[in-house]
Amino acid sequence: MTFKSFNPPERILMGPGPSQVSARVLSALARPTIGHLDPEFVRMMDEVKSLLQYAFKTKNEFTIALSAPGSAGMEACFVNLVERGDKVIVCRNGVFGGRMVENVTRLGAEAIIVDSPWGRAVEIDKVQAALDANPDAKFLAFVHAETSTGAVSDAKTLCKMAQDNDCLTIVDAVTSLGGVELRVDDWGIDAIYSGTQKCMSCVPGISPVSFSDKAVAVAKNRKTPIQSWFLDQTLVMAYWGGAGKRSYHHTAPVNSLYALHESLLMVQEEGIENAWARHRAQHESLAKGLKKLGIEFIVPEDERLPQLNTIHIPEGADDAKVRSYLLEHYNLEIGAGLGDLAGKAWRIGLMGHTAQSENVALCLAALEDALNQ
Amino acid sequence: MTFKSFNPPERILMGPGPSQVSARVLSALARPTIGHLDPEFVRMMDEVKSLLQYAFKTKNEFTIALSAPGSAGMEACFVNLVERGDKVIVCRNGVFGGRMVENVTRLGAEAIIVDSPWGRAVEIDKVQAALDANPDAKFLAFVHAETSTGAVSDAKTLCKMAQDNDCLTIVDAVTSLGGVELRVDDWGIDAIYSGTQKCMSCVPGISPVSFSDKAVAVAKNRKTPIQSWFLDQTLVMAYWGGAGKRSYHHTAPVNSLYALHESLLMVQEEGIENAWARHRAQHESLAKGLKKLGIEFIVPEDERLPQLNTIHIPEGADDAKVRSYLLEHYNLEIGAGLGDLAGKAWRIGLMGHTAQSENVALCLAALEDALNQ
Repeated sequence: MTFKSFNPPERILMGPGPSQVSARVLSALARPTIGHLDPEFVRMMDEVKSLLQYAFKTKNEFTIALSAPGSAGMEACFVNLVERGDKVIVCRNGVFGGRMVENVTRLGAEAIIVDSPWGRAVEIDKVQAALDANPDAKFLAFVHAETSTGAVSDAKTLCKMAQDNDCLTIVDAVTSLGGVELRVDDWGIDAIYSGTQKCMSCVPGISPVSFSDKAVAVAKNRKTPIQSWFLDQTLVMAYWGGAGKRSYHHTAPVNSLYALHESLLMVQEEGIENAWARHRAQHESLAKGLKKLGIEFIVPEDERLPQLNTIHIPEGADDAKVRSYLLEHYNLEIGAGLGDLAGKAWRIGLMGHTAQSENVALCLAALEDALNQ
Repeated sequence: MTFKSFNPPERILMGPGPSQVSARVLSALARPTIGHLDPEFVRMMDEVKSLLQYAFKTKNEFTIALSAPGSAGMEACFVNLVERGDKVIVCRNGVFGGRMVENVTRLGAEAIIVDSPWGRAVEIDKVQAALDANPDAKFLAFVHAETSTGAVSDAKTLCKMAQDNDCLTIVDAVTSLGGVELRVDDWGIDAIYSGTQKCMSCVPGISPVSFSDKAVAVAKNRKTPIQSWFLDQTLVMAYWGGAGKRSYHHTAPVNSLYALHESLLMVQEEGIENAWARHRAQHESLAKGLKKLGIEFIVPEDERLPQLNTIHIPEGADDAKVRSYLLEHYNLEIGAGLGDLAGKAWRIGLMGHTAQSENVALCLAALEDALNQ
């Protein structure tokens, strides 16, 4: 067993995440590790919290970076808020809606599933029907930006409907945060989670999470204990919590939080509305080029995510061969289809730092070359 | 809100973890992010697996780096193996044994608690009595190296007792891995978890986990579903699993795994037995110096962890003031007491890269100065 230090190739990451991580963020990541209770580290955590509040457009006091990937962020929302036997309306229009159903089922709650077609936004009318049919439902859960299909759903309207029906909302913003309009407070979202490796362009492994005061109260006043110790946010609050003393819960991923701090600073410097506009502009430029190549989108134009472009694999093209060619000849990664779209679609990410003209140009040129092989 | 890039002070980390991270590991951490399904990344994961098998002294096929801190590794062991109603004998001689009890209780299983005094090894006789009194117990769970007290327990004997009583073992090796003798296969450990930020001297946030074939079979043949989706190791196996195709489960913390790969390479280059001996030698040198300062250990000599030295706060010394002085004047972090030992003890870590003569010398000199203020 003689292994060497690992020197990764320098890829251009245009898949569904991780996205391109800037040299600035990588450099922050590699700064010397300090203690997770060091006063300097605690001060930085406060800044991360403020910067996350900025990115989420929320004043929620409970806004943190959870020490695990987005799928743990999802589970944290469900296990803290939902109790055994509760009814949860779950919108499913892709892989991640399906994962929400798994979460609800595994904790012994009841999932009322509202299915919409893959590649389409969540169908508002069907959700309204489910709300009407289930006046005892306590939660409405949906994915804002489906990473498996590239469709964006109307989070604002869905949240309004939930409020009108006394439901709390649990929202997956893994791929939406930083890439499209998202307003936690204005829309009245109760629990939201994201990931760092998409439009934040930070390294993978951390999940930004925010709970409204109402959601915090629900977590604190449960009848039954939270089934997970690691994900128990009432304990995590004492570590991330307000002014004063920090209680040890677990060892925070110190260096990854340096990186998140830096990537959030970059979002703030650009201005989050400008970041949304940049994603939109690069998407339009990519869409124009794809049209020239005769490549078609899976998602209808007004339901498309600018940061995740899901396209039909052109007839005659070999899925795996094309992706390997791009990787080998151009160090360019694009994403394969996932779930129902496996073998049928490619996913081209324009997330965060990836959403630059030079990457769009490269992607179009490389794709044209690959398809002509 | 005008924040700047975060430039942490350069601390010398002699607390209970994180330990000092070498420049070599930090440099690996900052290499360019690539995709979690990139063939080069998958090849590196295979090497991480082999290197973890080396460090754990196991041939267990299911040996992985879990994408979250040690406390999630703990929870993964419990939620995958233990079912509602199962009886688990849990040895508790510090904070982390108590956390095991929390895990067992929250999943609806029954914890038979065997208490031993804080600062002492788990008492073998009491465990035998619990095994005798509970022939239907399915698991024996204990902490090999209690990070809250600095006591090491006789894992070899405890595992033998468990086997003789048809119990599977769940072992916390967060602080022991790489610092003291640990032989997963020879001792017949069934499920073990550790952390990267202790004697591996990697950045915090990852938990090495290994299951014996017997434990894997238990996880796969449960009567009830695993309550956590994120920690469901039967799903994770398909990502980390054997030869061939990798199935997506969640986005792996790519850069942290670069760092773990590098720190495991360093362990292998030194030789793990040599690492154990180095921890022992530096501990003896520290103990000699502490004796000269009139400082006493909490743990009896033959139950002491070399990598975590828990000492009585000398009479008249102000706990918080001394630690602040060390931090401010020497950039030196030592640990406060935890749980029952809060305000009564300090914890001096000599973990991994921290266990060097220059750090022992500095710690003794700085402590002498601080106590004379």
